[in-house]
Parts: sequence; structure tokens; C-alpha cells
Amino acid sequence: MRATFMYGPGDVRVENVPDPKIVEATDAIVRITMACVCGSDLHPYHPMDKTDEGAPMGHEFLGVVEETGSAVTGLKRGDFVVSPFAFADNTCPIRRDGFHTACPHGGWYGAGGVGGAQADGTLVKLPAEVDKSLLPSLLALSDAYLTGYHAAHMGRVEAGKTVTVIGDGAVGLSAVLASRRMGAEKIILMGRHTSRTDLGKQWGATDVVAERGEEGIAKVMDLTGGEGSHVVLEAVGLMPAYEQAYGVVRPGGVISRVGVPQYEEAPVGFGSLFGKNASLTGGPAPVRAYLEPAIADVLAGRIDPGRVFDAEVSLAQVADAYKALDDRTNLKVVVRP
Amino acid sequence: MRATFMYGPGDVRVENVPDPKIVEATDAIVRITMACVCGSDLHPYHPMDKTDEGAPMGHEFLGVVEETGSAVTGLKRGDFVVSPFAFADNTCPIRRDGFHTACPHGGWYGAGGVGGAQADGTLVKLPAEVDKSLLPSLLALSDAYLTGYHAAHMGRVEAGKTVTVIGDGAVGLSAVLASRRMGAEKIILMGRHTSRTDLGKQWGATDVVAERGEEGIAKVMDLTGGEGSHVVLEAVGLMPAYEQAYGVVRPGGVISRVGVPQYEEAPVGFGSLFGKNASLTGGPAPVRAYLEPAIADVLAGRIDPGRVFDAEVSLAQVADAYKALDDRTNLKVVVRP
Repeated sequence: MRATFMYGPGDVRVENVPDPKIVEATDAIVRITMACVCGSDLHPYHPMDKTDEGAPMGHEFLGVVEETGSAVTGLKRGDFVVSPFAFADNTCPIRRDGFHTACPHGGWYGAGGVGGAQADGTLVKLPAEVDKSLLPSLLALSDAYLTGYHAAHMGRVEAGKTVTVIGDGAVGLSAVLASRRMGAEKIILMGRHTSRTDLGKQWGATDVVAERGEEGIAKVMDLTGGEGSHVVLEAVGLMPAYEQAYGVVRPGGVISRVGVPQYEEAPVGFGSLFGKNASLTGGPAPVRAYLEPAIADVLAGRIDPGRVFDAEVSLAQVADAYKALDDRTNLKVVVRP
Repeated sequence: MRATFMYGPGDVRVENVPDPKIVEATDAIVRITMACVCGSDLHPYHPMDKTDEGAPMGHEFLGVVEETGSAVTGLKRGDFVVSPFAFADNTCPIRRDGFHTACPHGGWYGAGGVGGAQADGTLVKLPAEVDKSLLPSLLALSDAYLTGYHAAHMGRVEAGKTVTVIGDGAVGLSAVLASRRMGAEKIILMGRHTSRTDLGKQWGATDVVAERGEEGIAKVMDLTGGEGSHVVLEAVGLMPAYEQAYGVVRPGGVISRVGVPQYEEAPVGFGSLFGKNASLTGGPAPVRAYLEPAIADVLAGRIDPGRVFDAEVSLAQVADAYKALDDRTNLKVVVRP
């Protein structure tokens, strides 16, 4: 089969690799029919050290089951499925809490030599006959939308709360959509790409703040009567976004992060979080915990998260997609075999 | 009047200062009848730079109202009162959220030249005739017990959750008592002073872990079936306690801090909080928000938080109390005029 690898800064290649095989009895082999490139796929795009091995890329897909291991009972050859961006066995106590991404038997696609998935615990079957126009929205459930949803869920967004979303990428815009679904009336979107914030407005953002840093913080404070935002959804992962977050959060408010932090240490003391009793929450979205109701929402037309996709490439052109996302020319790109 | 000042490391003095006067119409002057020394009073005891002015100390007291400003309507001369360790006007929107310590019109005793209190918003009247044996428990509401309570409240302690309390000082022990009141059945107390952890056991701790660092983390993981603690209440404020907290918190769990952080930056990235979707919360306790029901609990004998006091000194001996607390000879010391 063909697969995408990154070998160093800006160096993305499609190569032939051996076809996958069932290794564990709980494995499934899935033929990918539709995939996409994630913001987190871009994280190594500049800082990565050159390597001869190449790092396998990608973790969001729709596909068709080709083969299943002997212990797989919930799926069979020919089933159309969607996958969370992390795999899990969906059986342990941590799963009962709804945090599949911390599954001791799970992991991340592309890490530790894993290319497959623990089938029953990870893959969720879709109807065989799905209107083609809904496919992008189903693909968006694999990561982007449900990561935005996770931010809002962990931030305890509800009616009457003011929500500030930092970042106008696919996840930030998805966080706007999810916040609106949870009843938030005032949603401030911090972003400066008009084509993106326009979609944010259609999805429920009531205000857009293009300024960053102290200036952006001052604008949000103005928009909240000087009190700050009950909930801040941070969908970037860089330190300036974190600083904006604790700058605009209201005393007793919540900062919910889903942008993978590109830092380990950050301010949490009296001058940032502690003094105003601000909470910090969030992490990798346990997509598996949210998939079924989200699939129902897409199939019923209640949400249209696939609108984040503004381009499509074939697998052979995937390097172009990385470049377009890095340049901010595109918001999110579908990859077809 | 006489007041306590700190002039440098280990240098605590009682001095004569001018009697307080009503400055704002919302002020009250309170004659202190019973006070105590807080763990946070000890924070500058070693690192403080020598100063000629001296820093005014203390923020927990019971007292009798001597005089009120013209705008004070809820209190009058002769009323017996308890005070939160921070003052607030109790009128702004932040107060409605229950975060009085972030009141834009409030502040900290001893800071910014403030020795008094915004009376109606801060002081809470007690019955004139209180059984003397209950006075220490009422004094403990001024800070220690309700700070421990705040930790448990922000950590969302409830029945069925495992709680780990880091620190066996007055606040940590109070956090055990509050967690038990909130229904926690498994309460692991991390502390190594047997006389203190014994009180913790009487208040509801089911397990005591004397080890620290990696060894202490391993013990807590063992006690929680390898899964970690749903809630961690951090009542120390030093980095090793923070590290223990994220070491023992369960995926999706909460770390609630009430020990004033003696650091500004701390690990919050993938390897500490983010990767396991752990939340970080807490801050200065908005004691005012919790006082009335806690007073009722003390008067009815449902809680006895005054058991943290294990010594009593006169104001003239207050420097001895600081030394005894610094040496860990005493747990918490009452100061009488």
C-alpha cells in the first residue's frame, strides 16, 4: 500500500510500504477511503530533525473493513467505519470515565510502530449507504469537530456562559459550533483570517477579535464588561495563546485546552491562574466517547462540521496539502486515495 | 494598639501602632479577641529580605465590633464577628459566582496599607453567647477549615470518588474533614507527622502515605489499583507537592490547589496534565461564600475544625508561635491579646 511519511522540515513523501497484516486477534485492517491532514500533523513540519526512517503521518479517516482478527465480533469485512484519532480497547475503568485517550491498552496512530487499530474498541460502524455530501462531516468527527467539542465539554459550556475561543483553525471553529450547540449565547472568536472567522460567525460566534496579546485581551475584557470570559477554549497550543487564555478568563472561570501544547512549563501561580481561582483543563479528545451521538447529529443534519474542508487532494499530492496548510492557504484538506 | 510585624528572616516583633480609624464609610473597627498564625504567615519567614518598615502579619480572627462607618447597616458596636482572611464588598458580579477573593473592591489584610475591613461585605456576625469550647472551631473558619473546604469544593469531591490530600498541615487536615463531609469514602493523606496524620485519620483519612516523591506516588498508585486518584487536594504550595499531585492524579481527574504556590511556572504540558486530561483548579478560598453554613455546622457540633489548634500564646509571645510552627513543633497556634 502507499503511505505518507515525513522525513524532515517540509519533506513529506508518499511511499510504497508492505500491506498491513493482522497481528493481534483484536486487530482490523481498514482500507482508507477518505482521510485528511490535521493541525497536529503540521507540528513537526518545521522543527523536525532530518531522519532516514521517516515518520508515518495521519490519523483521521473513513474506510472499509477488509479483514478482522479472530477476537473481533462487532465488525466484519465490508463494514464502513469512522475512526477516532487514537485507538483504545474501550474496556478499562478509565474508559468508563470517558477518557479513552488514556487507555492503558491504547495509543496513537503512527507511534510505536502501530499502523492498525484494536477494532471493536476503536472503529465505529457507519450506515452502508451514506449521502456523499455528508462524508466530509463524518470524516471531521475523526478528530477536528470532536476535539472542538471536547474543549467545550471539559470547559463546561452551558447556557448563560460567555465563551472565548482562541484560534480560528478547524478545531477552534469546531469549538464555536459545539459551544453554540451547548447553549452558549455570547461566543467571542479570537482569530484574524477573515475567511475562517466568517465560518465561525455562521456557526455561532457573536464577536470576532482579530487582535492578539495585550490588545486582544483588552478587547475581550471590553466585550465582557471588564469581567472576563467564563470559559476560554484554547485551540492553538502555543504559549502566546496560553497567555491570552489566562488574560481573558474570569475569576472562577475555566481554560480548556485542546491545542497540543508545544511547551511543557507555563505560568500557573498567583499572577496567572491561582490568584483568580481559574481552572485549567483539557487534553487529547477521547473521540470514541463522543462518536455515536455525533454521527447521529451529522446524519440528521443537525451539524455540518465538514465545512472546515476547503480543498481536496489525491494521496500523491499530499505534500502540497501540508504546504498549503502551513502557508494558511487552506483551512483543512481532504486526502483521497 | 499592639500589632505583629515581620522585619526579616525569623524576626517577628510586636509593636505599638496608632489605633485604627474609620477611613471609608463602609469600614468597621474590630477589637480582636482571638487570632492565630497561618501557614502562609510563615511563607516569608525564611526568604524575606530584611526591611526597616516591617510587614504587618495575620489575617484570621474573631472579634467585637467597636465602631462602624456611616454606610454600615448590618453590624453595630458590640457585635461578635468572624472574618474571612480576605475582605470584599460582597456586591459585585464576581461575588455572585462565589469568588469573593477576586472582588475588584476587596483585598488582603496587611497589603496596600489596609488594616481594616469593608464591614458588611466581610464580617459575619456570631451569636453573642457562644460556648467557649466552640471558639477555636469558629476561629478556624476564618481561613484553615474553609480553605480545606474550598479545595474539596473546587475539586468536586463527592461520594464514590477517591481523594488524595497532599500535606498534613492545618489546611490539609481540614481538607480531609471537608472531603469526608462531602461523601468521599477513600481518602489518602500524604504526610509524615504522626501526631497530625492521627488527627487526619480521626477526621476520615482511610490511608496515610508518609513517603514523598516517586516513592509516595507509587504508594498512592498501589492504593488506587494503579489508576490514580480522582481528586488531589494540594495543601502545601511547593513544587514537590505539585509534582506529587500530577503524579497521582487519574486520567480525567482534578488537582485542586489551595497551598499558595511558591512558584509561578510549573509543568502543564503533555507529560504532566494535558496528556491525561487532568484538570488544575483552586486558589485563595472565598471564605465569605462558605461562612454561614459552616458557622451553623460548628454551632450544631457537626464539625470540630478547631482541633487543629495545639497551643496558645499571648500576643507578646507571638514570635515563639512563628518559631514553633516553623520547627513543626506545633500544628496551629491561637494568639490571644
